[in-house]
Amino acid sequence: MSPFRATAPLTRDWEHFGFAVADGVATVTFTRPSKLNALTFDVYADLRDLVIELPQHADVRVLVITGEGRGFCSGGDVEEIIGELQKFETAELLEFTRMTGAVVKALRECPIPVIAAVNGVAAGAGSVIALASDFRLLAESAKFAFLFTKVGLAGADMGSAYLLPRLVGLGRATELLMLGDKVSAARASEIGLASQVVPDADLPEVASALARRLADGPALAYATTKVLLTRELDMDLGSAIELEAITQALLMTAKDHKEFYAAWTAGREPRWTGR
Amino acid sequence: MSPFRATAPLTRDWEHFGFAVADGVATVTFTRPSKLNALTFDVYADLRDLVIELPQHADVRVLVITGEGRGFCSGGDVEEIIGELQKFETAELLEFTRMTGAVVKALRECPIPVIAAVNGVAAGAGSVIALASDFRLLAESAKFAFLFTKVGLAGADMGSAYLLPRLVGLGRATELLMLGDKVSAARASEIGLASQVVPDADLPEVASALARRLADGPALAYATTKVLLTRELDMDLGSAIELEAITQALLMTAKDHKEFYAAWTAGREPRWTGR
Amino acid sequence: MSPFRATAPLTRDWEHFGFAVADGVATVTFTRPSKLNALTFDVYADLRDLVIELPQHADVRVLVITGEGRGFCSGGDVEEIIGELQKFETAELLEFTRMTGAVVKALRECPIPVIAAVNGVAAGAGSVIALASDFRLLAESAKFAFLFTKVGLAGADMGSAYLLPRLVGLGRATELLMLGDKVSAARASEIGLASQVVPDADLPEVASALARRLADGPALAYATTKVLLTRELDMDLGSAIELEAITQALLMTAKDHKEFYAAWTAGREPRWTGR
Repeated sequence: MSPFRATAPLTRDWEHFGFAVADGVATVTFTRPSKLNALTFDVYADLRDLVIELPQHADVRVLVITGEGRGFCSGGDVEEIIGELQKFETAELLEFTRMTGAVVKALRECPIPVIAAVNGVAAGAGSVIALASDFRLLAESAKFAFLFTKVGLAGADMGSAYLLPRLVGLGRATELLMLGDKVSAARASEIGLASQVVPDADLPEVASALARRLADGPALAYATTKVLLTRELDMDLGSAIELEAITQALLMTAKDHKEFYAAWTAGREPRWTGR
Repeated sequence: MSPFRATAPLTRDWEHFGFAVADGVATVTFTRPSKLNALTFDVYADLRDLVIELPQHADVRVLVITGEGRGFCSGGDVEEIIGELQKFETAELLEFTRMTGAVVKALRECPIPVIAAVNGVAAGAGSVIALASDFRLLAESAKFAFLFTKVGLAGADMGSAYLLPRLVGLGRATELLMLGDKVSAARASEIGLASQVVPDADLPEVASALARRLADGPALAYATTKVLLTRELDMDLGSAIELEAITQALLMTAKDHKEFYAAWTAGREPRWTGR
Repeated sequence: MSPFRATAPLTRDWEHFGFAVADGVATVTFTRPSKLNALTFDVYADLRDLVIELPQHADVRVLVITGEGRGFCSGGDVEEIIGELQKFETAELLEFTRMTGAVVKALRECPIPVIAAVNGVAAGAGSVIALASDFRLLAESAKFAFLFTKVGLAGADMGSAYLLPRLVGLGRATELLMLGDKVSAARASEIGLASQVVPDADLPEVASALARRLADGPALAYATTKVLLTRELDMDLGSAIELEAITQALLMTAKDHKEFYAAWTAGREPRWTGR
């Protein structure tokens, strides 16, 4: 989305998850299926750095996050993360929690739409990564579990106590974050936590079709919609309306809006360039 | 609602939509049925000005907005607005988008309750006008479509990215604004976007009954409820509670509250004066 | 939750509602069943003071609020409150409305989870007390009624116009607060206003089980989750993520998190101390 990068190289290979870009669609695949894709320190760090870099990949218009095997992401690994935290001193603990929060901040501030293709359990940090995405496509067998209190920690983790009430309301968020119980895909759909629930076998295809649609469409319009949705949660009515007026005037000068009108006049489909 | 107007006259006739006041109920009817009531520059301007003036009409206690024919309002006319925008320079584009935003700002800040009687498709700006109303009564055949990205523009238009997440949650708002797909009346009801869905033929009667109830009721109490709902979206908990304490103390000195007690004591129905 | 109290005594007996503490669970029972537990000035005052004191009771980890008889709480008594208000001068009215708001502020800011066991009608102030609780368990026959406009007052009372839109969305909140009509338990559940609906006879047991679970669990984790949920409604994304990072680092140094890891390593259930 942004051509402005000078000296710093873009990372070519990511060591701690699968990463591929094809035809405008970037895909992150968690690849520790034997552990339901539990996160390690390195996965967090790479995810933060990737999402920060991603808008500068000229060829990426949408990001899909998914998991290999039966799970989407079961959160921080009990041995490799929680075990290690026991040895940390104060400053190190804060460095860790800030890193995890930075993943969510990057996901929300990234102008590229993010699809979480939740193929199985999304627990702890895994559930917050899905929560911070723009679309949550759930396999029927998928579940959410904001299980932080079950490990003796605050249900408020990585921004969950900010985001969840804004998706499902304060009452339901209180229940989910305080108790940490599992939420079925059907329930997630009912309360606005899932965008769509599909048979397990169909998830890759459905996610791919949505990614395709977003990648082929008016990318600048999509990106701007996402950015304003994120920002206007924190703005007052008058300022939000002003921001939308200025933003929309800008988009009226861009190629895709002109292309819409040209196509409409000619009676053909628009050919979006995303600019 | 306010007697304070000095030199500036109230507009007597509105040229670009139907306008009538009967027994406390003002009604705006979009009247371009052959174009599903697509908006022109003049309709926007008149709607903004009317809603700003309306609180100073001593005889108006509720506003109903509806459409003639099969549509409620299909948004900005492709020829008469989008076509014209192609010729606009930067400052003109901003003048236009600010005007459209001003319609929503006026609707939300107007102390008079607004009922959108959505008789058919509400698309683009039409869907945001309904969104900015206090009640959305939908005919079964009505649909919403926040279709801005389909014309290459941001889904954030006229405050939609501020309002919609506050009605249906961030996840559902993201889906509706980013993709711009149609939303059926039934789905709108499920997610809290419709107040009520009724058979098409019953819509005028149901809208009229709600308007009647609001016009005959304790108007100052209704108006204050609306104004505080609008303002408290942008306030913190402590300030909101203080604002409500001060406001409620004020209303306790007003006629209608005293009338309630007098009526209750006498075992009769209250006769509201709306003051 | 806090041992820091010096000279000021804790109140031993509350005269205007039932109050008991057993095994970490405090219970407030409204005890005017013949009036559906309508509130008096003294009940408000006591409830405010109790909830402010409660975090300094070393032995309390959860608060249950319920009603005796057929009602939960029918709001301010028409004779003993509304009747008296008619004689009040301005400053007294404000003293009253500030007291009622202070009850809600205390409930939301209290770090102890609050369960409203809504055994019957919750009307007016009674509905807002339930709204300000963290969990709303409803008997099937229970109803909400934010009936303020029906007595000629603003639907915005005690923070209702701040809280309700954040639970059920702006559209539904507008309808409920402006019209003041009854909401059935089933409807409350559908829109996220009830955490759970149970057969009337089961309510005490279900409330007790949830209270037990909260009292026996990691109390510091629960308390922190509640406090951050409350505060992050009023914070921006970046600040919320920072607050969660700092808070979670703090909880990682606390006993219960270490206990989780020790228990997990030993293959046993954690023994929470709530610290």
